[in-house]
Amino acid sequence: MRLIGLSEVLPGEPVTNRDMAERFGLHEKWLDRMTGNRGRYFCDVNSPDGVPKNTGDLATEAGKRAIAAAGIDPATLDFVILATGSPDFLMPATVNTVADRLGLNDLPTFQLTSGCAGALTALYTARALLAGGLRRGLVIGADSVVKLWPAQHDSQRISPAELAGFALFGDGAGATVVDADDEGPGLVVDHIVLRTVGKDRAPAQLVRWYGADGAPMIEGPGGTPVRESMGEEDYKAIAEHVPGMACTVLDELVAATGWQLGEVEHVLAPQLNGLMSEKIRERMGVTAEQAVSCVADTGNNGNALPLIQLHRAARRIESGVGVGGRMLAVAIESSKWIISGLALRHQAEEARDVS
Amino acid sequence: MRLIGLSEVLPGEPVTNRDMAERFGLHEKWLDRMTGNRGRYFCDVNSPDGVPKNTGDLATEAGKRAIAAAGIDPATLDFVILATGSPDFLMPATVNTVADRLGLNDLPTFQLTSGCAGALTALYTARALLAGGLRRGLVIGADSVVKLWPAQHDSQRISPAELAGFALFGDGAGATVVDADDEGPGLVVDHIVLRTVGKDRAPAQLVRWYGADGAPMIEGPGGTPVRESMGEEDYKAIAEHVPGMACTVLDELVAATGWQLGEVEHVLAPQLNGLMSEKIRERMGVTAEQAVSCVADTGNNGNALPLIQLHRAARRIESGVGVGGRMLAVAIESSKWIISGLALRHQAEEARDVS
Repeated sequence: MRLIGLSEVLPGEPVTNRDMAERFGLHEKWLDRMTGNRGRYFCDVNSPDGVPKNTGDLATEAGKRAIAAAGIDPATLDFVILATGSPDFLMPATVNTVADRLGLNDLPTFQLTSGCAGALTALYTARALLAGGLRRGLVIGADSVVKLWPAQHDSQRISPAELAGFALFGDGAGATVVDADDEGPGLVVDHIVLRTVGKDRAPAQLVRWYGADGAPMIEGPGGTPVRESMGEEDYKAIAEHVPGMACTVLDELVAATGWQLGEVEHVLAPQLNGLMSEKIRERMGVTAEQAVSCVADTGNNGNALPLIQLHRAARRIESGVGVGGRMLAVAIESSKWIISGLALRHQAEEARDVS
Repeated sequence: MRLIGLSEVLPGEPVTNRDMAERFGLHEKWLDRMTGNRGRYFCDVNSPDGVPKNTGDLATEAGKRAIAAAGIDPATLDFVILATGSPDFLMPATVNTVADRLGLNDLPTFQLTSGCAGALTALYTARALLAGGLRRGLVIGADSVVKLWPAQHDSQRISPAELAGFALFGDGAGATVVDADDEGPGLVVDHIVLRTVGKDRAPAQLVRWYGADGAPMIEGPGGTPVRESMGEEDYKAIAEHVPGMACTVLDELVAATGWQLGEVEHVLAPQLNGLMSEKIRERMGVTAEQAVSCVADTGNNGNALPLIQLHRAARRIESGVGVGGRMLAVAIESSKWIISGLALRHQAEEARDVS
C-alpha cells in the first residue's frame, strides 16, 4: 500500500488559551503550563456555507485536498473510509454524505468509530481492502468536538475538571489516497501494528452522547445539581501507561523493519498534548529533529491527528528533509487502550524508473 | 469465507402495538395496519446486571452465543467487528468494551457506523481482513434505540409522525464467527454486493445525536415550541426506491452465482417493516416458503437484522429445510442509499470428508 496524496484541514482561526479562558472561565496559565498546548481550532456551527461547520464538512474538504494532492481522477477510487469519534448524525454515516459531496458513488464506504488510533485503524482496513482486490481508496480521519459543548451560558454548570479535559481537544481532518501499487512516488507502508491492550484496564477516556433529553442533572459537590459530565479522562492512567506503550510499538516497528531508530528520518510520536508528547518523544529516544509533532498548535483532534502528522512529514520531504527516507508513526488510544504503529518508506518521483 | 456459528439476541419481552399505544399515545390500529409489525424489543436502561441495558450488552451476549454455536476457542479469533448505529458512547468504541468482556485482547477491532446495510458491510470488511492474512473473526451487528427516546413525560412534545417512525425500530443483536477456511460445515460466502447509490438522492433516514444540551426547542405547528425531531424518515422515497434496488441486487447475485432464483432454498429480503417486506418479497419473485423474514416480530433493529435472518435460516437448515442448499440475502440502507447482497452455500457436516 502506497500513500500518494496527503492533506490536512483546520477550521477557522486558532483558538488561544486566552480565548478559552474568556469563553469558559478556564485559567489561561493553567492551560499554558499543564497542557503545553498553545491553541486548537473549532468549527463554528453557525458558519456561512463553505466554511466547515462539522465533521462532515472537514472530512469533505480533507478528501478533496488529498485527491488534488494525489493528482488522481476521483473516478479511480474504489472505496472511502472515514474514521471519526464525532459523526454528524447516528444515521446516515457521515462517510456517505462525504462520498456524495466528493462526487463518489457506486463504491463501498466504511465509517470507523474510533479515537486516537482511528487513522491507523483506517489504514489497516484500507490495506485489507487492497489485499482483497480493490486498487485505490480514500482514507479520511476527522473530528469536531464543538458540538459536544454546552451552550455558552451553561458552561458554569460544567465542572472545571471536565472543561479542562475538553480544552485538550480540537477540530480537524486529515486524508490520504492509498494505492495498491507500491511502485511510484509516495509513502510505501511496510508494516502496521494494531491491537487492543485493554484487558483488565478501565477506559481512560470516555465521551458521551445523548438523545433528545441531553445530559441528565445529577447531584454535584455539596448537593448542588450539575449536569452529568460529557466526558471523563483518567489523566493519571494515561500519563502512567502511554509512554511505555509507545515504546513497545516503536520497538516492534524497529524489529519488523530492521531499521535503526537513529537512522529514521521522521518519527511521529503520540500527540496527547504538547507537554506529554514531548515527554513521550524523549522516552522513545527520538530527537527533536526526527520528531514530527503538531498537537501543541492543533489541539488533540483525534482521528485527524496522525494523518495531519503524515501530511506535515510529507511537507518536510517536499522541502528536502529526509527525501527517500524512513518514517515511523505511533498512536496510542487510551479510551479502551489500543496500540498502533506504522512504518513507511518515502519513494521519490524517480523511484518509478528504478523499479 | 465461511460462517461457522450464528446467534441472535432480543432483549426482554416483546413490546406489542398496544404497549406502544399506551406508552406513547400512538394509535394501535394504525401501527397494525400501516406497518404490519406486531412487536419489537427494547432494552431497559434500568435493568439489573445481566439483563441487556444497551448496545454493548446486546453485542456481548450475541458474540458469546456465536462463539458457543461455532464451538471454537475464543483465543483463535484474530479480529472483532461491530456494526452499529447506536454506540454506548462516542468513545471508547463499543466494540472494545465488548471485546474485553468476551475475554478478547491483543487483536484489532473495528466498529462500523452503519444502519440496514451494516451487517453486510461488516461481512465485506471481514472478508477483506481474511484476504489480508487473518484467519478467523467475530462479526456482530447490534442496535439499541431506546436511549434516543425522550423521558416518558415528555413524549407528548414529540410529533406523532416522528413517534410513528421510531415505532418501526427495535433493539437487538446478531453475530457470527467467520473463518478463512472454506472447507467444513457452515455457510460459505460466494459473493458480496456492497456499494453506495446515493448520488443526487437526499438521505431518506436520519437519526440525530446530541451533546449536553439535548435537542433544541424549535417552532412547531401553530407557533408552539416543539423539540427538534430526533429523526426523520422519507417513507415515500423508501417505498418508491427500495423494491427496485432489492431486485437489482438479487439480479446481480443470481448472475454472479449462476443460480436460478426458483432453486434457491433461502431468500433473506430487506426487512423495513412487515408490510413493506412482504411487498418487496413479492416484487422480487420470492415465494413465502423461500423467504426468511423476522421484522414483523423483531421490529427494525438495523445492524442486527440480516444476522438475525441468517441465524433463522441456519435454524431452518438445522430443522432439515434446505440442507446443502443456497441462500441469497439482500439489505438496502435508505439512510444515504447503500445496496448490499450476499450469496451463500450451506455445507453440511460431511462436506469436510468430501473435500
